[in-house]
Order: sequence, then C-alpha cells, then structure tokens
Amino acid sequence: MKALKILSIGFLISINTTTAQDKPVDDVNPFIGTSNFGATHPGAIAPRGMASVSPFNVAGKQNVLEKDSRWLSNPYVNENTFLTGFTHVNLSGVGCPDLGVIITMPTTGELETDHLKYGTAYTDEVAKAGYYSVNLPKYKVKAEATASTRTGVTRYTFPEGRSNILLNLGLGLTNEQGAMVKVVSPTEIEGMRTVGSFCYNSPEHAYPVYFVARFSKPADEFGIWKKPATYEGEEAQWMTYNGKTRMMKGFTREVIGDSIGAYFSYNLKKSAAVEMKIGVSYVSIANARENLEKETGGLDFDKVYERTKKAWNEKLSKIEVEGGTKEDRTIFYTALYHTLIHPNIFNDINGEYPEISTGKIGKTDNHRYTVFSLWDTYRNYHQFMSMVYPGQQLEMVKNMLDMYDENGWLPKWELNSTETFTMVGDPASVVLADTYLRGLTDFDVEKAYEAMKKSATQLENNPLRPALADYLRDGYVNTSSLADGVVSTTQEYNVADYAIARLARALGKKEDYRSFYKRSLSYRKLFDKKLKLLRPRNADGSWYEPFDPVKGANFEKNMGFIEGNAWQYVFMLTHDAKGMIKLMGGKKDFEAQLDHIFDNGHYDMANEPDIAYGFLYNYIKGSEWKAQKRIRELLDTYYKNAPDGLPGNDDTGTMSAWAIYSMMGIYPITPANPEYTFVVPRFSKITIHLDIDYYKKDKLVITCNNPGESRYIDKIQVGGKEYKGYFISDEALLNAGEVSFRLKEND
Amino acid sequence: MKALKILSIGFLISINTTTAQDKPVDDVNPFIGTSNFGATHPGAIAPRGMASVSPFNVAGKQNVLEKDSRWLSNPYVNENTFLTGFTHVNLSGVGCPDLGVIITMPTTGELETDHLKYGTAYTDEVAKAGYYSVNLPKYKVKAEATASTRTGVTRYTFPEGRSNILLNLGLGLTNEQGAMVKVVSPTEIEGMRTVGSFCYNSPEHAYPVYFVARFSKPADEFGIWKKPATYEGEEAQWMTYNGKTRMMKGFTREVIGDSIGAYFSYNLKKSAAVEMKIGVSYVSIANARENLEKETGGLDFDKVYERTKKAWNEKLSKIEVEGGTKEDRTIFYTALYHTLIHPNIFNDINGEYPEISTGKIGKTDNHRYTVFSLWDTYRNYHQFMSMVYPGQQLEMVKNMLDMYDENGWLPKWELNSTETFTMVGDPASVVLADTYLRGLTDFDVEKAYEAMKKSATQLENNPLRPALADYLRDGYVNTSSLADGVVSTTQEYNVADYAIARLARALGKKEDYRSFYKRSLSYRKLFDKKLKLLRPRNADGSWYEPFDPVKGANFEKNMGFIEGNAWQYVFMLTHDAKGMIKLMGGKKDFEAQLDHIFDNGHYDMANEPDIAYGFLYNYIKGSEWKAQKRIRELLDTYYKNAPDGLPGNDDTGTMSAWAIYSMMGIYPITPANPEYTFVVPRFSKITIHLDIDYYKKDKLVITCNNPGESRYIDKIQVGGKEYKGYFISDEALLNAGEVSFRLKEND
Repeated sequence: MKALKILSIGFLISINTTTAQDKPVDDVNPFIGTSNFGATHPGAIAPRGMASVSPFNVAGKQNVLEKDSRWLSNPYVNENTFLTGFTHVNLSGVGCPDLGVIITMPTTGELETDHLKYGTAYTDEVAKAGYYSVNLPKYKVKAEATASTRTGVTRYTFPEGRSNILLNLGLGLTNEQGAMVKVVSPTEIEGMRTVGSFCYNSPEHAYPVYFVARFSKPADEFGIWKKPATYEGEEAQWMTYNGKTRMMKGFTREVIGDSIGAYFSYNLKKSAAVEMKIGVSYVSIANARENLEKETGGLDFDKVYERTKKAWNEKLSKIEVEGGTKEDRTIFYTALYHTLIHPNIFNDINGEYPEISTGKIGKTDNHRYTVFSLWDTYRNYHQFMSMVYPGQQLEMVKNMLDMYDENGWLPKWELNSTETFTMVGDPASVVLADTYLRGLTDFDVEKAYEAMKKSATQLENNPLRPALADYLRDGYVNTSSLADGVVSTTQEYNVADYAIARLARALGKKEDYRSFYKRSLSYRKLFDKKLKLLRPRNADGSWYEPFDPVKGANFEKNMGFIEGNAWQYVFMLTHDAKGMIKLMGGKKDFEAQLDHIFDNGHYDMANEPDIAYGFLYNYIKGSEWKAQKRIRELLDTYYKNAPDGLPGNDDTGTMSAWAIYSMMGIYPITPANPEYTFVVPRFSKITIHLDIDYYKKDKLVITCNNPGESRYIDKIQVGGKEYKGYFISDEALLNAGEVSFRLKEND
Repeated sequence: MKALKILSIGFLISINTTTAQDKPVDDVNPFIGTSNFGATHPGAIAPRGMASVSPFNVAGKQNVLEKDSRWLSNPYVNENTFLTGFTHVNLSGVGCPDLGVIITMPTTGELETDHLKYGTAYTDEVAKAGYYSVNLPKYKVKAEATASTRTGVTRYTFPEGRSNILLNLGLGLTNEQGAMVKVVSPTEIEGMRTVGSFCYNSPEHAYPVYFVARFSKPADEFGIWKKPATYEGEEAQWMTYNGKTRMMKGFTREVIGDSIGAYFSYNLKKSAAVEMKIGVSYVSIANARENLEKETGGLDFDKVYERTKKAWNEKLSKIEVEGGTKEDRTIFYTALYHTLIHPNIFNDINGEYPEISTGKIGKTDNHRYTVFSLWDTYRNYHQFMSMVYPGQQLEMVKNMLDMYDENGWLPKWELNSTETFTMVGDPASVVLADTYLRGLTDFDVEKAYEAMKKSATQLENNPLRPALADYLRDGYVNTSSLADGVVSTTQEYNVADYAIARLARALGKKEDYRSFYKRSLSYRKLFDKKLKLLRPRNADGSWYEPFDPVKGANFEKNMGFIEGNAWQYVFMLTHDAKGMIKLMGGKKDFEAQLDHIFDNGHYDMANEPDIAYGFLYNYIKGSEWKAQKRIRELLDTYYKNAPDGLPGNDDTGTMSAWAIYSMMGIYPITPANPEYTFVVPRFSKITIHLDIDYYKKDKLVITCNNPGESRYIDKIQVGGKEYKGYFISDEALLNAGEVSFRLKEND
C-alpha cells in the first residue's frame, strides 16, 4: 500500500502537469533519434508534412559524420557541430540519403556563397513539435523554423548592418544535382531542385521538387550565384571566369546549374527579423505558390507555429498517458510524433500529385500519401495506424491501390511516386490483408486481392517477387536464383503468402486459402536441423557452403540474409509459431534458442527481422515473464530521451511504433493476423481514443497498477473480466473498453 | 562594238533567266562565308529570323576546325566533314562563339546519345535562302531544314526500321552550359538552354533561350538522357551510375543538367518523313509555343518554306540588278541576304522581349531587334539600311533609344538584351546621327542627343567611353589610361564626336557643334610626322616605345590598336580627310602612303578600320581611277561565289554591305556625313526601290555602259545631267532618279 500511496501522489502530480502544461505536444523531443543513426531530424514539421525545415549539419569536414565521406542518410547529426543551412524537404528515419535540399542560410556581412566558408558553429538549439531554433554566434543571428503541411517557414533575427539570406540549391543531402532558380521580385524566388536516386537506385527516375520562396521584407539587393563546370577546351585561356562562382546581381531570368543559389540581402539600420516562407510541390511551381498562399497567406511565423502546434497536439492526444516517468512520457510521445511524419502528404492543396510511373498528374479529393517503407512498416506500423488513425490507414491502403492502377504493381518502397525497389519481399500485400482483417474494409478489396495475387503468381517480369518460379517449384529461392538474401526472400514471400491466405479465407476463397497457406510454410525447407537455423540452399538442394550464422550482422552483405544474419531471421515467421516450435524440437528447445540469441548478443534491436523476438516467449506457457523482461530491457536499453534514444534508423516510424506498442503493453505479433499479445505497460493509465466511425467503442483504456515498480504480470482483466492467456484478437481488444494489468509485487 | 554586241547577248540571256527562274532569291548561295572565317552558316533562316537551322559540324576531332580546340565562332565550317546535328539559334558572321544550341539529330538503329559516336559524314548539301538539306549516308537519312521567323522546321526522311530524333541540349557552340527539358507528350517537348558569355565576357548575364518542339508524328518511344557530373565522395562506391549517361525512358518530368537531351524514336514499317518544328523565345516557354503555333500552325514543311522563300524574294527584290556575271549576281544577292540576317527580331509574336539590364519583360507593337555589332555596322551597314530599308532602320534606331531608357546607356555590342561591351568606342552615336542626317528623322532626336552627350561627357563610371577624362584633357587616351588600343580608342571617340557635332549642327546647337567638331580632330596629336602614322603616347606625352607599325595585324593584341595595326588605322578618320592630307604633307604624300599600304600587304580587307581605304583616292583629284582599281581588285580578290567568298568575319553584314555598295558603284565614305563617293558598278543596271514613305522618288536607277569590260569611269550623269566630282550628297543621290556611269573604253 505504501508503494501504491506514493504512486497515487505521483499520479496526481502527473495529472496536474499533464493538464496544465504538459500537453502531449510539449512532451515531444525531436532530438531523439538524431544520433546513433536514428536518422530523424530535429527540424520543424507539421503532421505528415510534405515540407519540413531541418538544420543541415552534415556538410564539411568539421563534422564527425560528413555526408560525402560515408553512407549518411540524414540532414542532421547531433554530434556534428558545423551548420550550413536549413533544408526544406526531408526524410525522417530512413536508411538512404535523399532529399535534404532547398537550403536556406542567414549570414551577415560580405556575401559568401561557399557553404564551407559561410558555415558556422551554433548554440542554444531548441526543438519542439513544429518548431526549431538555434543561435549562430558567428553572425549574431537567431534562426527559427516552423512549418505548415507544404510550407517551411523560417524567421531570421539579424543584427544591425548587412544581412543575407542564402538559398543554396547546389548543396544537398541527395547525391542528385541540378536546379533552376529565378528571382521573381524582391520578395519572391521560384525554382526547382532535382532529387532522387534513393539508396543509390533508379537515377533514371530522378525528379524535381518545385518551390516558391516569399520574404516578409523586400530585398535591398538580390542576385544569383552559379558555379559552372570547368570548361576543358582551348578557349579556357580566354575564359577568366572558367569554373569560378559567378555573382549575377539583380538577375531575374532563370538560371540553371548543378551549383547555384540565390541571395537576398538587407541593409538593416537596426536589428530586425525577416520571415521567409518556402512552399513546395512535386507537381509545379504554380502549385508550390498555391500551397504557400493557401496555407500561410496572411499568417506570420508565430501564427503558423500556433496552428501547427495545435494540429500536433490534436494528433498526439489520440493517446493519453498518465503515470510513468517524465522520460517515459517523452519517449512515448516522441515515438508517436515519429509515427506521424511518414507516410507524408504528397498531394498539393489543390489535390494534384505526380502519379507513379505514368508521368501523369493525378488528382485526389482526399490525400495522396508517400514514403511507404513497407518492408519495415508492414510489421507493426500499419497495425498501429489501423488502431489509432484508421481513417489515414484506409487512405494509405487506397493510395496503394491507386499505385497499382497507375503502375501495374503494388508499391514496395515508394518514395514520391518513384518505386525504389529497396529491400525484398511483397510487403504491400501484408498491409492490405492486415488492414482488412482488422475490420477496416472500406476499400476495393477485390482489386486488392487481384493485385496481391498478381505479384504472387506472375512468373516473368515480376518486379516484386524475383525468382518466383524457383520459389514455387522448390518452396525457396536458391543461391542461383538471386545474388543475395535468398533465405530472407523466401521468408518474405512466406509472410506475403500467409497474408493472402488469411485474406482469401476472409473472402471465402477456400481453395486459395489452402494453397497460399501451404506456400506460407515453405521456409521450413531451409531449416537446418543441426544448426537449428535457416540457411541457404543451392539450386540442387544442397546446403550453401561455407555458412557462418553470424555473417550478415551489421548490414554485411551475404548470400542468405538481407540486413541481418541467420540468428536475426530464424524466428521471423510468427505466423508459423507452432511450426517453428516443432522445428526446434519443442517449446524448450525453442525457448533455449531464443535465450541463446538474446544472451549472446545475436539480437539486433536496430532492424526489423527480429523485431518481434522479445514477444515470442508468450508462445511458451509459463515463460511469458521472459517476454515482459526482454521487452522492458530492450526499452530501457535502446529507447531514451536523448539524441541516441532510438536503436538505429527509425525506419519511418517502425521502431517508434514498436516502442509505443511495447510501452502500452500490447503488440501485434503477427502481420496479417489480427491479434495482439501482452507485455507490461509503462504507464498507469493509457487512453486510446478510438474513432467511432470505424470502431464500436470510442476508447480503449489500459491500466496498470504500478508500472515501473513491479515488473511482471500477475493478472489481466479485459472488459472487467479476468483474461486467460497472453493473446487477444484485435476485435476483442478494441471492443473491450478496458484492459487492466495487475502486476506481481516485489519482483 | 564587238565586245558590246557580245555583251548585249549576255544581257538578254541574263534578263531571261532573271525573270523566268533567277529571281533574286535563287541567286543566294548561303555557303558563301562558311569558310575563311566568314562565320556565316548555310542553314535555313527567314529574313531577320530569331530562329535558324544550321548544320552543326564543329564538334569532334574529325573536324579540321574543332570548336573546343580553338577560338571558333560559327556552328558550321565548310571544310569540316563530321556533322553532329542541327542548331536552332545561331549568330551569323560574328567573331565570338555563342548560341549554336538546341541541336537536333536524326539517327537510325540503336539509340546513341554521345555526339562523337552518333555524328556522321554527310553528302549532297543544298543551301538556299530559307532552305538547307543534306544526306547522311551512315543512316540513309535525308535531313531538310526551313524556318519561319521564330520557328525552325526540319524534315527527316528515314528508311524503314527504328529511327530516332535526338534533341541534344548539352552540345552547343556557346561555352555556357545548363538546360532544362520536359517531354510534354509524344508529339511535344519543351525546355530551355543557357547561352551567353559572348566573347568570353559577362558570364554573369548568361541567360536562357526557351523552346517548344513539335513533331508531325507521335513518338513510338521517347525519353530523356542525362550525363550527370561525376560524384566525388565516398558514396561513389554505391553509385554504379556515377558520372554515366542515364537513359530516362518515358520520363515526363523536368530534367535539368549540363549534358542532357531528349529522344523521340519511331518504328517505321516503311520509309517515312517526320517533320519537327522548334519554336523559340527569349521570354518564356509559353511564348515559344505561341510563336510556333501562330507562325507555323497548320503548315507543313513545304508550306513554311514557300512562305519564307517568298519573304526573302520580296526583301531581296528591293534591289534589282541586270547585267553582270552570274557570279556577280550571286555574290551580290548573297551579300544582300547576309545584310538581312542581323540585327534580327528579338520580340515574340505577342510583342514581348526581355529588356536590357532591367530584368523586365518589355512589349513592342512593332519590332525589337537585337545583335547590334555597332563597331562594325556604324561604318556602312546602317547607311545601307537607311537607304534601302528605312522603316527597319528607324525601328532599329528606336530600339537603341529604348535600350538607353532601359539601361541608361546606348548599346555598344548588344546581343539578346545583354551588353557585351565588345570592341571600343561609342558607335551608337554615329548610327543615330547618321540616320537623322540622312533624313530619317522620325524618332526622338532630343533623347538621342541627350544619350549621345551622356556617353560623351560623363567622366566617371562611363561604360562606353573609359578614360574619357584623359581623352578630354589631352585629346587622346594614353598608355596609362587603358591596357591596349589607345590610338584606336582615341580615333573611335573622334568618330563619335564628329557624329555629335554633325547632329548638333543639324539641331541648331552651334556651341556643341563647335566643341564636338574640335574634339573630333584630336587624333592629330597622335600623328608621328616621322613615321606618318598614328602612334600611342604615354601619360607624359612621350611616344610609346618600342613601336612597331606592323604589330597588331591578324588580331594580335597591342598597345595602340584594336584588331589592327598602325597602317590599318592611320586613314580611318575620313571625316577629316583634308586634315589627314595635310598631316601627310599634301595630296602626293597622302596618296603615296595609301599606295604603300596596298602595295606592301598592310591593307586588311578582313576588318573594319581600313574598310574605306580603297575609296580615299577619290579625295585626290586625278587619282580617282585608283579607287576604281583598288575596289575592283578587292572585290575580285576577296568576294567570291565560294565558301571562302568573304574576306573574313562578315561582321553581321558589314563586309557584305561593303560589297553591295562597291558593286553598285557608290559608298558612304564617312559615317555621320550623308554623302556618297563613286566607283564603278558591276552591273549594267541596278534598280534600288526606294520607300516612298521616306523618300521622294520611288527608285534610284544606276546604269553603267559596260561593267566588267571597261574598268574606269569616263563620265557620270546624275538625274540626266553631267556630274562633276566623285562625291554626292545622300539627298542628291536619292532624289536623282538615275545615275549613269559611262566608262572609258579599252582600259
């Protein structure tokens, strides 16, 4: 009772702070994930914003992690110290460099356009949901950023004297080059910048992002700079300007080049703030201008931030938590924030967006989302969307079907209407089936089924499932079928086939159900009983040699596995938990193998294949406490209120979704199987506001008697009744109203 | 009499062929000037066209004169043999490389986008006014070109099989780089290409030319290629495409880059022709499209050519010649053709054009012309325009005043609304005064006078007359004033001051007249009596040492003279013919010095300073026959119906205007002095149709009893009356109705 009393006091304090100051939006720390390759950025963004304003500190050897000296996928790294501007389109939590362009930079004094020279150290960073600010001592400038959905807004407070706002279109995170810029007036610039080649793939699809920049104050002087390529011919002797940066003062025509930019300069009689708005679009400059005007016309920086902050708070308030530490609250709401960045809105405010692969401009009355990192997100992210943001999840599902209509194929890793074909497998099928099976059926499921079957059955020219014929013949992809990742690929095909089977069953297609369910278990043929691991087979059926189960860790390329090794993949197929147990030789051996992985450092929290491993103990009656322990330990070890507070790439919210679920004590352990499994929540009360357009109850309340004190579950009540077991169907959970965890004391 | 009889027969034949087949337009040979650095091109162009389609054969080491291996100013050289396409904006007869972009190329078979690989030898060239064709044996393709004012039209006749039309936006004559391209549909491409830096100057004003290309047949396949700059960072190891040309099949977004292009491919079941129209604009893509549609909408290749041919014939028929050899007719009409290329129309069909230096888009109800190579053209070209095309000349004068309004200064060497500041002096003043004094007064002469005085008096920050203060103080620019060309600069200032003086007198500004006339004679201070040449002085008044009168020939840079040497400049100031004679020590010494120049190879027909030398003998009573002899010899030596049929750069029609005048037996010997001097015409009858909106008589007929047979003038009749002397005022000549030359027999 003592403990309980203390808890109650804590609870009251928590409520007070929550209602008075600590709205969910105030618990977001955008610095989480900005180190340890989390690849998030601390910049300002609106929920699912197309535009965002991130500090850019990855150029220049002054920085520990320099963009051109390694594979680096983010515009900002917390350890770095040398800032060269603010990017206006960004990806969050991805593993490959792209976007990170349309860079602004405030400077003072004489104009300098070389980022290595104008770059600077910085202090006093502040980052909140929808807001970022920093001081630049070199220039005595304070830079602040906010954003509406399609418009980045910055405010630069300059000292007296000459000040400059640079718009650098050469520098960027992407390795693509090529920009156009035109000064329209002393308060407006328009242009475009080429981006693309995500993961160093598909340069032939590199595409432009368009922008219009507006300034609150007319420039006293403006111009363009261009650094042309060096001319190599004989005439170079007369070209005194050869290869040198040229300043084009007052120039108002289009300028094109790889290394160009525009500058707006002011002669300030006293310290003053200049506000800059940059509207973006993937359709046209005209649309970028319309986006800017309709979203931020007549609004100043403060007003835009106020609206964006409000929008964030509304979104984040879909889940309210009570109890738990301040750190846990911050970790939780920042994770929730990170799940609301991608997929992001891709259509302009007039509904237009570039279709995938058709080259046409499509139009939506609703939303077109982009950035579908489906190999990651099929595992838990879209399950989470289905639960908390079902309207958005349905839009995303419809978007995937639109992509199928446009492209002939479901998406795999879609980015701004380019299919990057990153990673392996057929993940969209899983998302479509999972969504339907969770009761979100308001989409053209027959078309979805047709699309899923196409990738599952078309043997030739199948971009989603290469080597499908081998897979269908042998049950697995062999070492001759593909250059690498043959086990992973087989497993991913099994996952997708399981999803098709489940959907087939739901649609009454019994024959398909049987056939695809059978296909979904074929990974078993890769099980090496001696090693108790999956391993690659050759075309003749023999084992691939040499085989080192550890090979593949830390993203090392290998024959069997994609971004992982045999340990990290062996237990991936939770839909066949029973089969896995049997393969291992029974529950004991299954548990021993799981323990071995965790205890010997084979587990990798930073990537997806083993993301559900901690929950697998729930399949072993009596060992569920180990799931509770492992998940608590993983949360404690890898999730922090600190820049390195994510285990690795956030993977567009997948790692964050894992944390949210884990901290709520529930996890959707098997994709396309609408059920959850239980662990210990981190808060005393969690209220998930459900959307009554889709669900019968308007909320699900999860309570826990003493989170953080006790560690293991004693009893679980669902809807007020004692609940047996650690698994619950999606439907039962969402209709329960309340789930109460009673923890054991003194564990 | 025998000779006369033969002549009569020849004359009759000539008349027959003239009226039946040999319309003036059929006497144009666009190959003239395509060798010997004439810098004209044989491509298709309409009179004063903004667009033109020239074969492009100056890229690739296969060519004798390769664009990147030397200073080369033309898209085509007759000696070259390796064709890499057809350029759609071109300069004619200039001394510096620029434009020569928007290059099309027909090929067959597999797509190849590297011009060094797709380039080819060619045969069967045909060039006429408004038409060019060539066979490409490598591809079995016939390529034909014509043009309306702002639209280049090509027709490619392909064999059966796969054929391609390339639109190469990387390759070009200009050293500027940077283009944007977008396939709008299977029959349309739009984009822009950066040009500029004429004479390797003012790269900060490099600007775009916009285009829209339309095809008569939808492409069976289309796409873009882009060769990106090579990425230098660590990530290059993952960029398998680094620095390589990428093919972007079916791509319909904007692509930007230094080395890009579009291709349209056809699978032809049988031989077929594809027509391609490229509308251009210096304002916008929309204007390029409107230009194309309004000029050529609904017209096929043949119809466009028919119209352009008609337009040429009308323009060329302003002067009709009879008698003379077929060669002379061709030389004459080709020269006339060359005077009708620049200045060319710069405004779009809707009247819009980029203003000079303001960055604004201006609008005209009439025409805005561009390419004012005034250092060349003030000497004879604009005089010729005033006589034969007075309406156009007045428009050009008004354009110059518009430029003054826009830019604050009169033009010097204006190119597409950039002031290239090429050459020295203040030539616009001469053109303005000369035009007015020839009776074309329908322009704002007070503004013109104000503009002229501004450049003649503003001591600081004067872009037209650097070192003006030194000039005004000492009468000359000294060797400390400027890095080179100090004598030439002094002489050019004298020329302009003479023009101002003459205009001042006409406007009743007596004080100004006296003062500027005095200024116009100050070159005399640079006369070295010992050498009987002009030579540079130092700041302290001493002669510049060492002094070599020959130095400066062949464009060698030197202290005293711009593109010339002391011999080629000494007699330039014809407005002070009397003074020059006196300086030389009298007529005899004057004549001896002139003879010395001609007889010892110091005369340079290829450039402007000594362009009037041959006529100077007319200042020496009794020696006029030498003028007749020299001019005949110069015509015979330097003007031919052959690619090397111009003495050097045509200088936007100046060299051609010299030939036209010389062949008509009249020459406007002193700029801003409205008088002509006589030599022997090359034709028996020349009818100049005068514009009765400007002149009292509707024609001036020049007859000559036996041109080509006898060589020296016996008697001259003007208006039916015997005429004394070899000079006649502009007014007297144009009101004469007829001028008859009777030549001496048996000379």
